[in-house]
Amino acid sequence: MSILIKNILHNNQRTNIFIENNHFAQIGECADIKADKVIDGTHKAIVPAFYNTHNHAAMSILRGYSDDKPLFEWLQKDIWPIEDKLTPEDIYIASRLAILEMIKSGTVFFADMYFFGEQTMRAVAEMGIRAAISRVEMDLFNPEMTTAKKKETAEFLSFSNPCPERIIKCLSCHAVYTVSDELFEYARDVAAKHDMYIQIHVSETEQENLDCLQKHGVSPVVKLDNLGLLGPKTILDHAVHLSEHDIDIIKKRKAIISTNPNSNIKLNSGLFMFEKLYSQIPEQITLGTDGASSNNNLSMLESMKMCSFAAKIQANSALAGKSIDVYKVATENGARAFGINAGKIAEGYLADCLLLDLNNPFLTPNYNLISNLVYAADSSCICDVICNGKLVMENRIVPDEQNIIFQAQALSEKIKKLK
Amino acid sequence: MSILIKNILHNNQRTNIFIENNHFAQIGECADIKADKVIDGTHKAIVPAFYNTHNHAAMSILRGYSDDKPLFEWLQKDIWPIEDKLTPEDIYIASRLAILEMIKSGTVFFADMYFFGEQTMRAVAEMGIRAAISRVEMDLFNPEMTTAKKKETAEFLSFSNPCPERIIKCLSCHAVYTVSDELFEYARDVAAKHDMYIQIHVSETEQENLDCLQKHGVSPVVKLDNLGLLGPKTILDHAVHLSEHDIDIIKKRKAIISTNPNSNIKLNSGLFMFEKLYSQIPEQITLGTDGASSNNNLSMLESMKMCSFAAKIQANSALAGKSIDVYKVATENGARAFGINAGKIAEGYLADCLLLDLNNPFLTPNYNLISNLVYAADSSCICDVICNGKLVMENRIVPDEQNIIFQAQALSEKIKKLK
Repeated sequence: MSILIKNILHNNQRTNIFIENNHFAQIGECADIKADKVIDGTHKAIVPAFYNTHNHAAMSILRGYSDDKPLFEWLQKDIWPIEDKLTPEDIYIASRLAILEMIKSGTVFFADMYFFGEQTMRAVAEMGIRAAISRVEMDLFNPEMTTAKKKETAEFLSFSNPCPERIIKCLSCHAVYTVSDELFEYARDVAAKHDMYIQIHVSETEQENLDCLQKHGVSPVVKLDNLGLLGPKTILDHAVHLSEHDIDIIKKRKAIISTNPNSNIKLNSGLFMFEKLYSQIPEQITLGTDGASSNNNLSMLESMKMCSFAAKIQANSALAGKSIDVYKVATENGARAFGINAGKIAEGYLADCLLLDLNNPFLTPNYNLISNLVYAADSSCICDVICNGKLVMENRIVPDEQNIIFQAQALSEKIKKLK
Repeated sequence: MSILIKNILHNNQRTNIFIENNHFAQIGECADIKADKVIDGTHKAIVPAFYNTHNHAAMSILRGYSDDKPLFEWLQKDIWPIEDKLTPEDIYIASRLAILEMIKSGTVFFADMYFFGEQTMRAVAEMGIRAAISRVEMDLFNPEMTTAKKKETAEFLSFSNPCPERIIKCLSCHAVYTVSDELFEYARDVAAKHDMYIQIHVSETEQENLDCLQKHGVSPVVKLDNLGLLGPKTILDHAVHLSEHDIDIIKKRKAIISTNPNSNIKLNSGLFMFEKLYSQIPEQITLGTDGASSNNNLSMLESMKMCSFAAKIQANSALAGKSIDVYKVATENGARAFGINAGKIAEGYLADCLLLDLNNPFLTPNYNLISNLVYAADSSCICDVICNGKLVMENRIVPDEQNIIFQAQALSEKIKKLK
């Protein structure tokens, strides 16, 4: 499979781009190369796609189910009781809905933390994007659950990855307030043995920090570090309430942070210290949406704007959260965090990209395309999405999208009756 | 002209809606009425359109021209020098771009404060939406400019409104730091004589309040009230930094507030006290985008979410800025503020509405359509826009949109050379 994109705007200049197999093979003087597919880029621009480093994709099926509540009340009263009743097939249908929404808004990778990961893998494999799918570890300090979770993890490890080229199998530990030391240590050892990524919610709320301090005498970051869980393959989700000491540890361990501005604001968890952290550890900051039921969408375009706006409020400065910084965080930083050789439009990189409609009013005028993407654009600006050298959306159409929607609508009718 | 919309979702029920001339003539058992145009609503929902109560529409041509700066620096160094060089025809072209973007994101009315209002009126008249267009009063305390502004206002008053059915001619006074008492009093008297609305920027930044206190010994709200400028036809734009006394005055005078969350956050002006004010004067709160160069778009969908999120941060509560409240502010409150009998889908009301694509992933599942609109939707969810009984967008196509974009692109090339 090869794609030739002719006369497209790239870094403010018109050029031609030849994609062969799964990577950018040639950029520049290649307008005459034969290709399986030729795209006229005259009214388009090419930019990197988005890498969403924190999601609970299947929660898209709970979008709008419960709103305007703080984190713990929302989670314990409304969300967990419904999640307990979802079947593996439900997770497949819900994951397809999430992936459809992600593709339509320009995302080609998501790091997922949820149940029945095998079903989410199946959806990702079919729909052509990338993901890091984990089995979520959470035992609520109940020894029976610890044993059960270890067994489930072993099953997850032995499950055959349907698409190793695009799917990374990894682990996740929910949080210090839901996972026992025994299960944390088990996850640490499994990750070390198989060289896997671990995703962990950390310091999402002040309450989490206070509880951890009371119970363990240290912050969640210190607790995780004491357990030997922090390293360059650890993704710390949220990380809203960090002390100077926490930041020093994260810096030293080269751990990755995924900031989730929409979720943190909607659940009133707090404002991430973007400017402070980006100035100290710019390569370690990535962007996520969290699940759609606390966001309430999976648009990285919107999350970039919210990341910038949260940064300005948090730092009390209009200069904080600059569009160029937020854009880097949402693209190349996210890809690099998961070892994906993508996030840039350059020869040799994996061919993940968006083709933008330069005649969309949100992108007009085009003094500064990155500013327009971060501050003005919405999903209607994206015409085509390419992942791993293949078109996963063409002229805003994703294969099988009507079926995906109808199945999700039918599932939501079932969920309404579960109340 | 009549439109029959069959089998459409309205307030969670399927119904039929008959639009005749410019209003909703019948809702319910009217599927067999003959109409000039019949729309199948099977996969759609009908909701009120948006009323944007603060805009500088033609500033869309400066989208992305200057970012990540505080208000005064942004305005004085980057924006004003360019604005001085724009011609009436430029304003017409730029207004068309803004109106195109507004229609595409579901807005059917905007209150405008800018130069060459005649040109913006011309664009509004042609493109089929509603607006309140003002001549901006600003003399920078220079007596020659005071005289000139009075003359320009007289000309504006005598200019023949090209579409009185959809366009309200009104006044605006820029702010207490740019308008002399003499010009304020002139505007007050003209407004009283012709029963006109007046738009005024007020307490946008803390600096504005401090300067006003130092110069006049009172807050901007008190100063305006002392000048006799506050009443139910006064629109106070921004109103971020209000004291209890200011709020009491606004309540007593029944003045309208237009909150502009995106602009206030992007320029780091502060966070509007949504929850406090909505609890005290719910009918007086409306929503605006401000101009696109400080937002950077005119999407009321996005501004609703930002309004809710700013409210949660400001009140330190996940319960603040509820979707249902923000939605009311963006629809019926905005319409009522300008005396437009719209903002609701009900018999006898003006036929302004949006038809939403219920198969869009952002609107799936549909447990709560208002939550989905405020927290999840973007402009891709809107299929059709009806204003004053006429389709101004059908299947996402606005008449003449390519020309509008091409003219705006050409104008932006000219502006680049003005630097």
